Amino acid sequence: MKKIAIDLMGGDYAPEEILAGALSFAKENEDVELYLVGIEENFKDVQLPKNCVKVVTDDFLPMDVKPTEAVRRRKSTMYVSCQLAREKKVDAVVSAGNTGALLACATFVVGRIKGIERPTLAVPIPTKNDFCVLADAGANIDVKPSNLLQFAIMGVEYAKLLGKDNPTIGLLNVGTEENKGTQKEKEAFQILKERFGNQFVGNVEGNDLNAGKVDVVVADGFHGNIAMKTMEGAAKMITELIKSEVKKNIISALGALLMKPVFSSLKNKLDPKKYGGTFFIGVEGVVVKAHGNSNRTAIFNALKVAKKGVEEKLPLKIKEALLKCAE
Amino acid sequence: MKKIAIDLMGGDYAPEEILAGALSFAKENEDVELYLVGIEENFKDVQLPKNCVKVVTDDFLPMDVKPTEAVRRRKSTMYVSCQLAREKKVDAVVSAGNTGALLACATFVVGRIKGIERPTLAVPIPTKNDFCVLADAGANIDVKPSNLLQFAIMGVEYAKLLGKDNPTIGLLNVGTEENKGTQKEKEAFQILKERFGNQFVGNVEGNDLNAGKVDVVVADGFHGNIAMKTMEGAAKMITELIKSEVKKNIISALGALLMKPVFSSLKNKLDPKKYGGTFFIGVEGVVVKAHGNSNRTAIFNALKVAKKGVEEKLPLKIKEALLKCAE
Repeated sequence: MKKIAIDLMGGDYAPEEILAGALSFAKENEDVELYLVGIEENFKDVQLPKNCVKVVTDDFLPMDVKPTEAVRRRKSTMYVSCQLAREKKVDAVVSAGNTGALLACATFVVGRIKGIERPTLAVPIPTKNDFCVLADAGANIDVKPSNLLQFAIMGVEYAKLLGKDNPTIGLLNVGTEENKGTQKEKEAFQILKERFGNQFVGNVEGNDLNAGKVDVVVADGFHGNIAMKTMEGAAKMITELIKSEVKKNIISALGALLMKPVFSSLKNKLDPKKYGGTFFIGVEGVVVKAHGNSNRTAIFNALKVAKKGVEEKLPLKIKEALLKCAE
Repeated sequence: MKKIAIDLMGGDYAPEEILAGALSFAKENEDVELYLVGIEENFKDVQLPKNCVKVVTDDFLPMDVKPTEAVRRRKSTMYVSCQLAREKKVDAVVSAGNTGALLACATFVVGRIKGIERPTLAVPIPTKNDFCVLADAGANIDVKPSNLLQFAIMGVEYAKLLGKDNPTIGLLNVGTEENKGTQKEKEAFQILKERFGNQFVGNVEGNDLNAGKVDVVVADGFHGNIAMKTMEGAAKMITELIKSEVKKNIISALGALLMKPVFSSLKNKLDPKKYGGTFFIGVEGVVVKAHGNSNRTAIFNALKVAKKGVEEKLPLKIKEALLKCAE
C-alpha cells in the first residue's frame, strides 16, 4: 500500500481546502493510505475514511516563514510530514506551504539522495503541442555548472515519468550559439554535451520554452524563476487585454461568446493547477510542492502527482541515473 | 537641421526594405537630413529626395558577425554610420544589423559618455494599460551593482522621453522581499534605495513586468534577455493556440471573425515593430537598434525614434542625470 503524508496547514486556503482535497482523494484512491498531518482542531467533527491516518501536532508554519526557521520548528505540520518520510513511514509528502521552507525540510529532514548536490524544483511548462520540464524553476538561484548537469539528469527522469520517451535537453541561455552566456553557461554547455551527446540539443532561448523546442530545459534557478513568472505575467496580460477589449463592443462580445470553447481550452492548457503540484527532485522520498493558492482540486491533483511519483519510483530512478552518469 | 545616418546594409531585409523605409521617412520629414550609408549598387536607379545624402563605402557586415570583427571592419556600412556620429556629422545612427556588432560600434566608435561604465539596451515592454522600460534587455549579460544603478538612471531618462513624468523603478529579482537574490541584487537594492528613495519601489518579479507594476525595470542583461524573449514566446504560443482551436469548429471561427477588432488591437499592442527600434543609451550620440527582421514600416518607425531622441537631446539628458547622481 502506498503511503502519502499531507500537510493540512500549508497553503493560502489551509486547512479547509487542503482537507477537502485530501478527503476526496482518499475516497477515490483506496490503494493509498493517507496521513493527514494537522493540529487538533483540523479534525473536529470530521469523519475520516478508513484509509486515512490522523497525525496530530501543535505547531504550523506561516506562509512567509524563513527556511532556517522551518527546519528548527520540529513540531510544525510540515516538519512532521517530512519526518514521516525520513522514517520511511510514508513514501511521499505533499505540502502547499512556503516553497523555501519545504525545500529546506525536503533537503534536511527527508534528506538528499547521496551524490545530489542540490535537489531541484522541476516544473512542467505548457508548449503549443505538449509540455517541457523546466529544471531548476527557482529553488537554487546561484548554481555551479555541475549543479546544472544534475538538474538535467533529474529533469530527464521527470520528463520520462510524464511520458516522454527519450527527452531532449536544452540549456537556457541568451543565444543559441555554443559560446553564449557567462563562464558558467559555457562550462555547463561542454559538460552537458559530453554527458548527453546528441540528446543535448544545445542552448535554447526564452522564446524556445513555450515553443517546445526541447523536452527538458536546464536553467540556473534565477533564470528559471524569471522565465516561469514572466510567462505567467504575459498570459495574464493577454487574457485581461482580450477581456477589456471585448467589453468595449457588443459584436466582439458576441464573438467571445461563440469562442467560449476556445478560451476554455486555452485556460485549461495554461492552468498551472492542472498538474496540482510539482516535485522537489533529488531527495530520499517523493516530495510534492503544491501551489500556495491551491484549492481542493489542486490538492487532489497534487496528491495524484505524488502517487504517480511513488508508483514510478522517482527517487530510485534518480539514483540509477546518477550511477549511470558516474560510470 | 537634424541629421540621421541609416545603415542600408543591416537587417534581414536589407537593402530593399531599409531603403524603402528611409526614403518614405525622408519625404515626410523635410526637417531631417538623412545620410544613406550603403554600397554603390544600393543607389542604382534610385531617385533621392533633396534631403538625402549619399554615403558610399564598399564593405558591409553579415548578420552573424562577431562584435570584435565589427569594430575592425572600418569600411562597413555600420562602422561608417557610427563614424559619422563620432565626427558629429550626424546626430543619430539607425541600424537593423547584428545587435552585438552595433553595441560594439556604438561603444567604441561613437564612444561612451564619460562616466558611463556600460551603455544599455533599453526596451519598452507592453503592459496592460501602458508600457514599462526594461534596462538592460540583453546588451550586458554579466554586470556589477554599480552598472545596475546606471541602467536605472538611463532607463528613467528613456521613460521620461516616452512621456512618463516621474517614473518609478523596480529591480528584477526572484521575490519582492528586500533580501532576495544573489549578493549582486542585494547590493543593487541598497544602492538604488539610497539614490532614488521612494522612486525605487523595490524588487519586482517576472510577472510584474507585463502587469506594469513599475515604469522602469532594472535588470542584469541576462535576466532581461530571458524575460523579454520568454514574453515573446508566451504571446506567440497563445496566439497559435487560439488559431488552431478556432480552426476546429465553425462556430468558434465565426466568433473569431466577430472578434477581429479585438485581435487586431491586441496584435498592435504586442507588436515589437510598433516602436521600430530602441536606443543604445549611454553613448555620445543617438544610436537606434532596429529589429533584425525590420520591414519598411519598422525602419520608418526606427527613424522616428531616432529623430525623437535627437529632439529630446537624450545623450545630454543622460549626462545631466549622471552629474545629478554624482552630487
